[in-house]
Amino acid sequence: MIGFEVQAREGEARAGSMRTGRGVVETPVFMPVGTQATVKAMTPEELEGLGARILLANTYHLHLRPGEETIRRLGGLHRFMHWDGPLLTDSGGFQVVSLSGLNRVSEEGVAFRSHLDGTRLFLSPEGAVEIQRALGADIFMCLDRPLPATAAEGELSEALALTSRWAARCKAAHDRQDGPQKGALFGITQGGTSEVLRRRSSEEIVALDFDGYALGGLSLGESTAAIHETVALSAPLLPAERPRYLMGMGEPEDLLAAIGAGMDLFDCVLPTRNARNGSLYTRHGKLSIKQARYREDPAPLDEGCPCPACRHYSRAYLRHLYVAGEILSMRLNTWHNLHFYLELMRQARQAIVEGRFAPFAAQFLETYRSGQGS
Amino acid sequence: MIGFEVQAREGEARAGSMRTGRGVVETPVFMPVGTQATVKAMTPEELEGLGARILLANTYHLHLRPGEETIRRLGGLHRFMHWDGPLLTDSGGFQVVSLSGLNRVSEEGVAFRSHLDGTRLFLSPEGAVEIQRALGADIFMCLDRPLPATAAEGELSEALALTSRWAARCKAAHDRQDGPQKGALFGITQGGTSEVLRRRSSEEIVALDFDGYALGGLSLGESTAAIHETVALSAPLLPAERPRYLMGMGEPEDLLAAIGAGMDLFDCVLPTRNARNGSLYTRHGKLSIKQARYREDPAPLDEGCPCPACRHYSRAYLRHLYVAGEILSMRLNTWHNLHFYLELMRQARQAIVEGRFAPFAAQFLETYRSGQGS
Repeated sequence: MIGFEVQAREGEARAGSMRTGRGVVETPVFMPVGTQATVKAMTPEELEGLGARILLANTYHLHLRPGEETIRRLGGLHRFMHWDGPLLTDSGGFQVVSLSGLNRVSEEGVAFRSHLDGTRLFLSPEGAVEIQRALGADIFMCLDRPLPATAAEGELSEALALTSRWAARCKAAHDRQDGPQKGALFGITQGGTSEVLRRRSSEEIVALDFDGYALGGLSLGESTAAIHETVALSAPLLPAERPRYLMGMGEPEDLLAAIGAGMDLFDCVLPTRNARNGSLYTRHGKLSIKQARYREDPAPLDEGCPCPACRHYSRAYLRHLYVAGEILSMRLNTWHNLHFYLELMRQARQAIVEGRFAPFAAQFLETYRSGQGS
Repeated sequence: MIGFEVQAREGEARAGSMRTGRGVVETPVFMPVGTQATVKAMTPEELEGLGARILLANTYHLHLRPGEETIRRLGGLHRFMHWDGPLLTDSGGFQVVSLSGLNRVSEEGVAFRSHLDGTRLFLSPEGAVEIQRALGADIFMCLDRPLPATAAEGELSEALALTSRWAARCKAAHDRQDGPQKGALFGITQGGTSEVLRRRSSEEIVALDFDGYALGGLSLGESTAAIHETVALSAPLLPAERPRYLMGMGEPEDLLAAIGAGMDLFDCVLPTRNARNGSLYTRHGKLSIKQARYREDPAPLDEGCPCPACRHYSRAYLRHLYVAGEILSMRLNTWHNLHFYLELMRQARQAIVEGRFAPFAAQFLETYRSGQGS
């Protein structure tokens, strides 16, 4: 179980504190993504050094490999990956649809084939909870049925209703558990970008009384404006006294907009994936380190940034590592991008506490959109 | 310039100390290979933490990319890669032949094509020295002409003679330099596995009076026994008061044999390359972490090893990372293998100082050859 307390508020934005059995997490917070029981290119010690306090791991991937029973026998996911802080696991609902070529959704759950070896598998709401329990997660997510907002209204409505029925089954499965390994369980709302559907989904999910609530089914092809609008209308539909989690997105602009709308928890592969592709975040916007203009640039990636990549190396060296395909390129780039995201969250929180989040966000965006300058 | 002092001796084996402008290096010493201005998967801070005191970088690779003039303009290789300790650079002589598809050796030097883009290039003895100077290396290597021991005696003899003439030209080019960036210059002997040729090569090279001497042209397909024999007969032909460097090899057994023969400096890609392929060194021999037998093995890679991979993780996790193709796999494996090599050197040195190198080496090899047990 977890506790959540809002410590400061500015408009809809909140600075909170989430108590878990493995320490307190100050919100808004960004959770680095450790898909396969590792945040790509980073050690847990480095993540801790960057100020990461909670990580996300993927139920789908770990179910396929190495398998949750293997991880359970090895003492659970924390011990397996050497991370003592809280872990949030997704339900696998998104990946069974996005990664698995063949899948069939029924009332019972999702039949799918492993993207690794084609094995036929089945994921039910109860199964998703059981996998997360075997992993020993601190925060479980309900199995949901995400659909892109471009789907027909009837389909969105059906997916929403199925998500609610699955949420009730997840809750029941979770309530049957006891013992020290019982984690918190978060519900997920669906409904595309429709206010009517988001409202209905929120009512149904909130009625089930979860430890926290997430917005699902976003960033599946909608415009940025539509996402921001949907987040702004959906966040206040979730209980103010519980943590609110925006799943699987986005760019710094999206996170600031969502914080302004009252969201607390975030995860996204962008900082880590972009890092590996040489796309790096700076105060002045994103920079593509592969560009020839950095060939002999002795300046650090982002002047004044205290991360190791910026303190010790030049853009010229980072470009060299990228062009040469060196592992250290992915390491330093990931280090920097994660620092950027985590620091942005810390600054946003501090701004909320001091009642200056609105001007902080405006100032950040103005500089960020001024274009990559050096 | 460098200084070298032998502090203890046991048979031919020596414990020495090499003074460079960037700190003292205790020998025998293993130099991790930083081919492209980075030891693959490692930061300089991690290398320092492992006790690495001197690194090797590759003239050929850095000449092609990013180019030595770029590195010179950025303040030299130390600053570029953020390594304050001494750097030894090879001459590129080995790579122009092994990596470049088309190459033609003449009295003047080697004409070759870049393995990256096919550009026609030319490396002369003077050019090799100039590149290493631009990089700002602490120890330069002469351009040599390595041939496999299986080459005809006539060819080996010609290559040896050419190596001597090139060495004289390198020495002359090096002597024309002055200023603070002047590094030490090491000569290289050739001659395959032939005692007659090695003797002749050593006489010619030593007559030129270098700061240190290397054995080249080994580990190009000869048997282990032939290599050990050649090292044993060649090492004593090099001046006792100068550091002796065995280039580009080998397994732990080879290093111990070479230390016993009186060699001081070593470099090899094996610990780092094997790490990336999941082949890991333990006291009980090499272990292939991909094997199914480690799937649920909770034991550390090498019981009692203080490296981070062994302190924090199970074989099961290391196997998972390897099978999942994670970057952390290459990082932890490299960390461990380099620790193994560096620690072996430290233990060998300590044993020489205490006059027990022979039993130490015998004991190590007995355990090491006992097969991978756990």
